[in-house]
Amino acid sequence: MSDMTSTQLADAARTLHTQSRGKLGTLLRVPLDSMQDLALAYSPGVGVISSDIARDPELSWTMTGRQNTVAVISDGSAVLGLGNIGPLAAMPVMEGKCALFKRFADLDAVPICLDTQNTDEIIRIVQSLEPSFGAINLEDISAPRCFVVEEALKKTMKIPIMHDDQWGTATVVLGGVINACKVTDRNLTSTKIVISGAGSAGIAIARLLIQYGATKIILCDSKGVITPENSGNEYKTEIITASTLHSDSGSISDALQNADIFIGVSAPNSITPEMISSMTPHPIIFALANPIPEIMPELALAAGAGVVATGRSDYPNQINNALVFPQLFRHCITTQTPFTRDIYIQAAQSLANSVPNPTPDRIVPNVFDTYSLFPSSAK
Amino acid sequence: MSDMTSTQLADAARTLHTQSRGKLGTLLRVPLDSMQDLALAYSPGVGVISSDIARDPELSWTMTGRQNTVAVISDGSAVLGLGNIGPLAAMPVMEGKCALFKRFADLDAVPICLDTQNTDEIIRIVQSLEPSFGAINLEDISAPRCFVVEEALKKTMKIPIMHDDQWGTATVVLGGVINACKVTDRNLTSTKIVISGAGSAGIAIARLLIQYGATKIILCDSKGVITPENSGNEYKTEIITASTLHSDSGSISDALQNADIFIGVSAPNSITPEMISSMTPHPIIFALANPIPEIMPELALAAGAGVVATGRSDYPNQINNALVFPQLFRHCITTQTPFTRDIYIQAAQSLANSVPNPTPDRIVPNVFDTYSLFPSSAK
Repeated sequence: MSDMTSTQLADAARTLHTQSRGKLGTLLRVPLDSMQDLALAYSPGVGVISSDIARDPELSWTMTGRQNTVAVISDGSAVLGLGNIGPLAAMPVMEGKCALFKRFADLDAVPICLDTQNTDEIIRIVQSLEPSFGAINLEDISAPRCFVVEEALKKTMKIPIMHDDQWGTATVVLGGVINACKVTDRNLTSTKIVISGAGSAGIAIARLLIQYGATKIILCDSKGVITPENSGNEYKTEIITASTLHSDSGSISDALQNADIFIGVSAPNSITPEMISSMTPHPIIFALANPIPEIMPELALAAGAGVVATGRSDYPNQINNALVFPQLFRHCITTQTPFTRDIYIQAAQSLANSVPNPTPDRIVPNVFDTYSLFPSSAK
Repeated sequence: MSDMTSTQLADAARTLHTQSRGKLGTLLRVPLDSMQDLALAYSPGVGVISSDIARDPELSWTMTGRQNTVAVISDGSAVLGLGNIGPLAAMPVMEGKCALFKRFADLDAVPICLDTQNTDEIIRIVQSLEPSFGAINLEDISAPRCFVVEEALKKTMKIPIMHDDQWGTATVVLGGVINACKVTDRNLTSTKIVISGAGSAGIAIARLLIQYGATKIILCDSKGVITPENSGNEYKTEIITASTLHSDSGSISDALQNADIFIGVSAPNSITPEMISSMTPHPIIFALANPIPEIMPELALAAGAGVVATGRSDYPNQINNALVFPQLFRHCITTQTPFTRDIYIQAAQSLANSVPNPTPDRIVPNVFDTYSLFPSSAK
């Protein structure tokens, strides 16, 4: 892949998508080759199953595909690096996500892009889909709407719900940071952490780091340090309030002085080697803007970085949600438990432990490695 | 199947559904076994596809699975012979329907049961699903709400939409009636037809027969002949108004005197041998109540029936929607044309023609036979 030019990649992607006619299809789990097969799987046999479930709704979990089915739902308002491209253009991404669910957790996932970006309407529609699915993966919904949608659905629905742009990202980042601290001999709870980007990923990363025990977090956006006065929404304020480290104002350059960890979910080339040199020795740099990071790994390492992680597969330490979301969903759908921050932390810790001897070039596994985040519910 | 008792059938259906963990799953249409595979099918390659579709929405039809994907949507308000059992209990039926789509037309269908029976809300939710699917199969929604939902969606959505309980049933019935008339030497346009049952199937059967040229139709429900005065809704009135044969009132027994064709989509054992004897010689009897017909075939034949059809697989002439809905959807999704009554009539005519020499015991093909309703769009 790193050998392909971007034009070659684009051509190959177009050929693949056109020739395969989409990335996902359905398969039969039962034979349908005789009248008897039809009588059992459809009429009249299915009437018995429907009657059973009408009498005892819990049987829905053992007699239908819900037990293995995830809806991947987006409104296309915040897609990858593309922004608000709408639901139709977001479909290939959701199909791809569903393909990853199949490949990495053998879950049957259905891509659903909604032709509305009205928050209340999205909430109502997703609620109405509850009888059809075993879990909901919210995807590529813009902040702060994504927080409102996720919170409302978690309060009102009985099936597990997770917004992967928030929690999948936060879980992998935490797992990576745990090992990066090990590699650079730091204690995560006392490190100074600067997060650049206060959208869905930035907020969730901060929330999870705080839940894990981090205390010194400075949150920045493109205008610099976020303060209670300029935060603009309650989610940013929550992070600032929880941090013991308070910066009245300033640029990201100011914030990074003597910081131990930089986590960027922001914009390409927004960090300079000089900023890295101003951090504590051998700082931890997570430059996750994709495909062009906040600083290229070569430059960060030359400026003294101890560990560098990006979102790219052509550099070491790829922070890839696919490392965790398939197993997170497998766990919560199988055990029928809601997603919680404790579960994300458990997954992050397992992810870190899956690399027994982390090095600067290997703080997280490769997505094709074999590891189990939840040994008890492994399929 | 006819050798199984109903208890044996129930046990076998429960075992099948539990062991298979549902009837449907997903499959990958693309390889996902290397970082290069992931780069093409997901990030960053998928960004090219999404950008292409954002620029030219028509590319959604060639670059995503929409081109082959049908949503099977119900609110669980009128399920098989079970009635309003709700969305959760309706799921096994929708899964079964989706399995039939796969088996008989290689279409990827997704079962969706909505946790609402509010007509306006159903309309709004289905509209919002348009970017995700190539066609919509409405299923098991009670009359007259089903007419309102289907009409509203057909007016506002660009993808093909069909309520199968109406049009699938009507299409197979028309195909069967065409051949039954051939077998009993009748001219369909001048026959006297009595339809018992004025729900979704009864209304659609009447509408399609009228579109085909039938002129003498009497519509009955459980209270007897429906008249303009007691019709109760505009859909029944439409049928009565279109018919040249007017009956002021009376019982179904009155209506059947000198009738040529009886089509029942009503209640078990609601027709007697005496009523059949009062019809014209060798009448055509479609006793489609399921699993127990309006009159058992043995009794109908003994009373003089020329042709008997039921919904059952253990008697000749099974009127089974699966004979037509997979190919109807294949045709309309491939050609991207809306479902129309002309298309249903074309399918019915092809279905009739697929049995070159119809006999009283064979007016329609078996669901496992090979035949093409739309030779030009056959897959």
